[in-house]
Amino acid sequence: MSNERVESLIRLMTLEEKVAQLVGIWVGADASGGGVAPHQADLTHEIDWPSAIQHGLGQLTRPYGSAPVYPEAGARSLARAQEQITEASRFGIAAQVHEECLTGFAAWGATVHPAPLCWGAAFDPGLVEEMAALIGASMRAAGVHQGLAPVLDVTRDYRWGRTEETIGEDPYLVGTIGTAYVRGLEGAGVVATLKHFAGYSASRGGRNLAPVSIGPRELADVLLPPFEMALRLGGARSVMHSYTELDGMPVAADEALLTGLLRDEWGFEGTVVADYFAVRFLEKLHGVAGDGAEAAALALRAGIDVELPTVDCYGSPLIDAVKAGLVDESLVDRALRRVLRQKDQLGLLDPVGQALTKPEELSFDDDASRDVALRLARQSIVVAANDGVLPLAGTRVALVGPVSDDHLALMGCYSFPVHVGEHRGRRELGLGLEIPTLRDLLPHAAHVRGCEVTGDDTSGFAEAVAAAAEADVCVLAVGDRSGLFGRGTSGEGCDAADLNLPGVQAELVRAVLATGTPVVLVVIAGRPYAVPSGAAAVVYAFLPGQLGARALAEVLTGAAEPSGRLPVSVPRDSGALPSTYLSPQLGLASAVSSVDPTPAYPFGHGLSYTAFEWSDAQAPAEWDSGGEANVGVTIRNTGERPGTEVVQLYLHDPVAQVTRPVSRLIGYQRVTLEPGRAARVSFTLHADLTSFTGRDGRRIVEPGELELRLARSSSDVAHAVRLSLTGPEREVGHHRRLVPQIDLVPLEA
Amino acid sequence: MSNERVESLIRLMTLEEKVAQLVGIWVGADASGGGVAPHQADLTHEIDWPSAIQHGLGQLTRPYGSAPVYPEAGARSLARAQEQITEASRFGIAAQVHEECLTGFAAWGATVHPAPLCWGAAFDPGLVEEMAALIGASMRAAGVHQGLAPVLDVTRDYRWGRTEETIGEDPYLVGTIGTAYVRGLEGAGVVATLKHFAGYSASRGGRNLAPVSIGPRELADVLLPPFEMALRLGGARSVMHSYTELDGMPVAADEALLTGLLRDEWGFEGTVVADYFAVRFLEKLHGVAGDGAEAAALALRAGIDVELPTVDCYGSPLIDAVKAGLVDESLVDRALRRVLRQKDQLGLLDPVGQALTKPEELSFDDDASRDVALRLARQSIVVAANDGVLPLAGTRVALVGPVSDDHLALMGCYSFPVHVGEHRGRRELGLGLEIPTLRDLLPHAAHVRGCEVTGDDTSGFAEAVAAAAEADVCVLAVGDRSGLFGRGTSGEGCDAADLNLPGVQAELVRAVLATGTPVVLVVIAGRPYAVPSGAAAVVYAFLPGQLGARALAEVLTGAAEPSGRLPVSVPRDSGALPSTYLSPQLGLASAVSSVDPTPAYPFGHGLSYTAFEWSDAQAPAEWDSGGEANVGVTIRNTGERPGTEVVQLYLHDPVAQVTRPVSRLIGYQRVTLEPGRAARVSFTLHADLTSFTGRDGRRIVEPGELELRLARSSSDVAHAVRLSLTGPEREVGHHRRLVPQIDLVPLEA
Repeated sequence: MSNERVESLIRLMTLEEKVAQLVGIWVGADASGGGVAPHQADLTHEIDWPSAIQHGLGQLTRPYGSAPVYPEAGARSLARAQEQITEASRFGIAAQVHEECLTGFAAWGATVHPAPLCWGAAFDPGLVEEMAALIGASMRAAGVHQGLAPVLDVTRDYRWGRTEETIGEDPYLVGTIGTAYVRGLEGAGVVATLKHFAGYSASRGGRNLAPVSIGPRELADVLLPPFEMALRLGGARSVMHSYTELDGMPVAADEALLTGLLRDEWGFEGTVVADYFAVRFLEKLHGVAGDGAEAAALALRAGIDVELPTVDCYGSPLIDAVKAGLVDESLVDRALRRVLRQKDQLGLLDPVGQALTKPEELSFDDDASRDVALRLARQSIVVAANDGVLPLAGTRVALVGPVSDDHLALMGCYSFPVHVGEHRGRRELGLGLEIPTLRDLLPHAAHVRGCEVTGDDTSGFAEAVAAAAEADVCVLAVGDRSGLFGRGTSGEGCDAADLNLPGVQAELVRAVLATGTPVVLVVIAGRPYAVPSGAAAVVYAFLPGQLGARALAEVLTGAAEPSGRLPVSVPRDSGALPSTYLSPQLGLASAVSSVDPTPAYPFGHGLSYTAFEWSDAQAPAEWDSGGEANVGVTIRNTGERPGTEVVQLYLHDPVAQVTRPVSRLIGYQRVTLEPGRAARVSFTLHADLTSFTGRDGRRIVEPGELELRLARSSSDVAHAVRLSLTGPEREVGHHRRLVPQIDLVPLEA
Repeated sequence: MSNERVESLIRLMTLEEKVAQLVGIWVGADASGGGVAPHQADLTHEIDWPSAIQHGLGQLTRPYGSAPVYPEAGARSLARAQEQITEASRFGIAAQVHEECLTGFAAWGATVHPAPLCWGAAFDPGLVEEMAALIGASMRAAGVHQGLAPVLDVTRDYRWGRTEETIGEDPYLVGTIGTAYVRGLEGAGVVATLKHFAGYSASRGGRNLAPVSIGPRELADVLLPPFEMALRLGGARSVMHSYTELDGMPVAADEALLTGLLRDEWGFEGTVVADYFAVRFLEKLHGVAGDGAEAAALALRAGIDVELPTVDCYGSPLIDAVKAGLVDESLVDRALRRVLRQKDQLGLLDPVGQALTKPEELSFDDDASRDVALRLARQSIVVAANDGVLPLAGTRVALVGPVSDDHLALMGCYSFPVHVGEHRGRRELGLGLEIPTLRDLLPHAAHVRGCEVTGDDTSGFAEAVAAAAEADVCVLAVGDRSGLFGRGTSGEGCDAADLNLPGVQAELVRAVLATGTPVVLVVIAGRPYAVPSGAAAVVYAFLPGQLGARALAEVLTGAAEPSGRLPVSVPRDSGALPSTYLSPQLGLASAVSSVDPTPAYPFGHGLSYTAFEWSDAQAPAEWDSGGEANVGVTIRNTGERPGTEVVQLYLHDPVAQVTRPVSRLIGYQRVTLEPGRAARVSFTLHADLTSFTGRDGRRIVEPGELELRLARSSSDVAHAVRLSLTGPEREVGHHRRLVPQIDLVPLEA
């Protein structure tokens, strides 16, 4: 029995050997394949490699992602490091290897997929699972066991720089897409890491790491469901805690959340890993520990099993804490048990027997990956407004704007070229990828940048205005350039004070609009910027990746049909944040405030180039509080072109014992139809899907009148169906149904 | 025994008579003194006066404030209405009369005092008590029993339109100043109403009434303390609930807050009154009740005793609810008992015996009131920056800006001229007050408005720029014009999307700054707008009232010394909100975000025209967790002019079991000194003042290292004293010490 083997190891190990399994070290691979070394630039103190592994080493992080090395060299270095670690361990235990992989394996030359907001915009779990399976396969082949993705934070404030890493502002959308990602990665044998558990996205003012004002009901009903879904339905085996504090309690020290909820209630058996440097933050930034030993004790007791990416607190400070009686060794064993059981599953207790792909055969940017990246990018492009100018046809196009020819502006912060390539100042090595831009792909008569993404230089405006004035149509591409901590306008640490386009881009937009030439405003960004009105068409692309410009060019020219839907609302005003569509009625009341809360474009909104007819909506009049209801609608493409409709199902609960969002998504289905064709979409909903956290904190199904809204967006309801939820009020436990069954049946023409 | 009398009445009353005591009707006085009539414009449905009082009437609201009537006519109308009500009641019970009074008795012709942010800026509880005593005396003389003030909401988001009604962003400052107001009002025999209990100021995005994301610890440590202080130390007899919902629970239905905390824990015995129309909001805007009867039952059960200002839900719907068994009549009796006991205290059970001032002798704008209004305004002016241009001396001044000659721009929303006079479109009646502007009082060589407060008309810029260019100094007055629901830029329902000056005022500032003439930027506003940099001096006046321009002119010219301190931070950026100085360390960390969280001017900041030396700071090395510590410092005026220093005492708690604000105010003292003179300020602090809500929700004193900061502002520490809090951890109950003892001793020269 494997458990016996793990228990036996626990009995035999010294405290030093135990603790060594609970730490991860951030390493960089040697470009010649000679091994790895601690990645000093990001560490809090110097680590000597032989000393670091003298009692074995539990985890290795970022062997491919720390610096640009060729895949083959990276694999050889990693293999050499594993040999050293295995040899240093009295028990021959290899390290569990972690790597970032949010928008693709964070390795030099790996395909860069669209950023997560694009996954949300595609409303297509199957395609995201396909992408994650390919990412996972490439990682597993490269000797990586754990991927530090997906991000399941539900967007709460668009100003937060990591908004681009989220899937959107709706828990059901984030949960279903996130679960698909997890299935793909786990199906490939790679441990998925759900992050950031929980509350990171709700920081005050959208400022990275700022305190979170939140109560237990909002946490339970908005922020936690995606984690529950990805664990229960996706089988994720690891969770990373959130840096933030919730109502004054740092999550890293929150036993109620990391153990009470996650383990005792949800039954999670995998590992909880620390966000980078976050154990020490309990001392340095939260002020709830006096030193590293206290920080280690707090984190271990709360339920953090593995410290990343240092031996800062779970090294000698933890040993000191155990020896001083600050924390019981049984808690070290608890964490160790989880780590060793996972290593056993992964074969790391028998590393010799593992068959890895030969380093020289590794390929991180194959045709299958590029195909998925392109399809996902295509599906994620959102045409928010279109007066008929799109698709572009036989017109003289002026291509303007600072992101029209910047390949780095297409990618999210957690892609290798942005996160590491730029960061390390190693651009001279090239990006290892072919990344075309709009300039390369969109036919145009003139091209002018006009300005940069940041800065206040307007000297290029005149040329941009002249080019626009001479053209039939101006395609104006504005938005973000992702980066880390101030090196970009979106991404980790790149928060915005408001939703004005960065730099002077809004002024450029106004200047070009003033020419009178129809403007197709293309916003390539990590957040939903509020843009000046007056454009003939408005298109949002949420960092669509390596092949994002190809997808954009196809959609703009009509070579592909637009089918993306907004995974976030686009606000009317650049201020007045935070605000998402998940608002109770009071937050939308119009007479009480001079600030209009309605968005410029609502969550779920997106246009196509064809037309759809919705008909034959059907639902029962009654629904038992313990049973199922079936809701269906027929969609017909009544236009001239093929196209895709996204059928969205929202729940409106007019009277409840606590306030409820006016509507919330409980189902969706993409429906792709040739002209004249129709299909029937039906949702089989269990009453559990109506549940919420009631007055006393229990999750309940509450009888009463409900309205199901079959809708084109959160604001555009095609059919609203009233029905009565009957029977007793019912408490809903952990085994509640989290998703409906959805059927899509093509109809005869 | 009065209680016996009340119990006897409860036994004798019909359900209709009982319920009639629990409602208030918004009335308008007849200008000829003939009585009052329901104020239809603001009611949800028509009310017939004889029917409304047929079973008696518990409460009358706004008899002076609904429309401009002369005091004498108002008093006669009110007396006539009371006769009718008393006659209609089988028991001869008069109505309890309510009126707004935040910045003065909300009656035509009454003195308009500075808005509450000014009270905070003055850091002078004694003067605020003096003001409130005068307000209370004028109300009592006019037959008003209850004043709907003060507002004890702690500022959480400057964008909220009602920020001007708050005292500031620190709970200790709000609590001490708010308590002083309550003492003044209650000392005059008028029931003070604490509002809004609780959480109104923390609405999402600062949008009026929007949902509040908050947890129990933030609620307990930031928002509730001022209410506890004003009840315990001020003796307030009424509380008005907050419109908002906290974490999904509408306060109007929150029994845990309105009864569990307020009554059972804090022992409050007065009345809880509904904010206007808020009982019906449980149905219409919160969706937690299906109709008026359910709303009434929810509110009554939660603990709302009186519905204002309608008979909408506590009228026949409540009677229906009782008859249908939706709510027990004993809960009607509970509310009735509180109402009748208060009426007994006020003499309203024996109305005939009451001696009122003769109507013809009423005066609402006497010398004493004007004197207090002027002194408070003077003390509230904050000189935030000054390169030496102030005080103005022998210079040619250009006076520019849209609030330089607008008497309504000096006053808060809840002053009669703004709240009612303008609102009713009755400006032709005049304001009944002499309200000088800067233009009237500040010597100047030229005057140009430049633009309006709102709108986008820049046609006046050229003239303003020319005037500035020709002058030695330009005094540029910009800011708000308060109003209700869209009729202003600050005030109830006048929320801001960001902290840019309204309209084109920021552009005007930049244009005038570009002239190179030294600019004294005077911001007269209800919130701390972020302003362009480059001014020679920056002065904030937070709607200083009827005599605010006089105070400003005195301070600008040096006829008075500046002594105000900021009761709110002035942010660096117009976005990036919410954020106040009460942030834990993580919220201020600089490397983690591109958004700089440090303010342009910190909480507590303010300059004077003289200089002070701080010396001889003294504190013990140890402090028992159940005992007191004495902290002192000597302040000496080392400059050439008289002046006032505000000694601020902040607590820094470096390590605690939950995160704590980096510093928080626990004491302050104004010290006014002639040149060369000195004084000793000492604070005797009980360890209770270090308490906070710990991990498990109990309020505790936690031993450990502490730092006491004697400071000029929250960012400018003169002396930091480390000391050890020793002894056991101690739970702190409701009888904790809420304020220190503060001694100010003048020293020999």
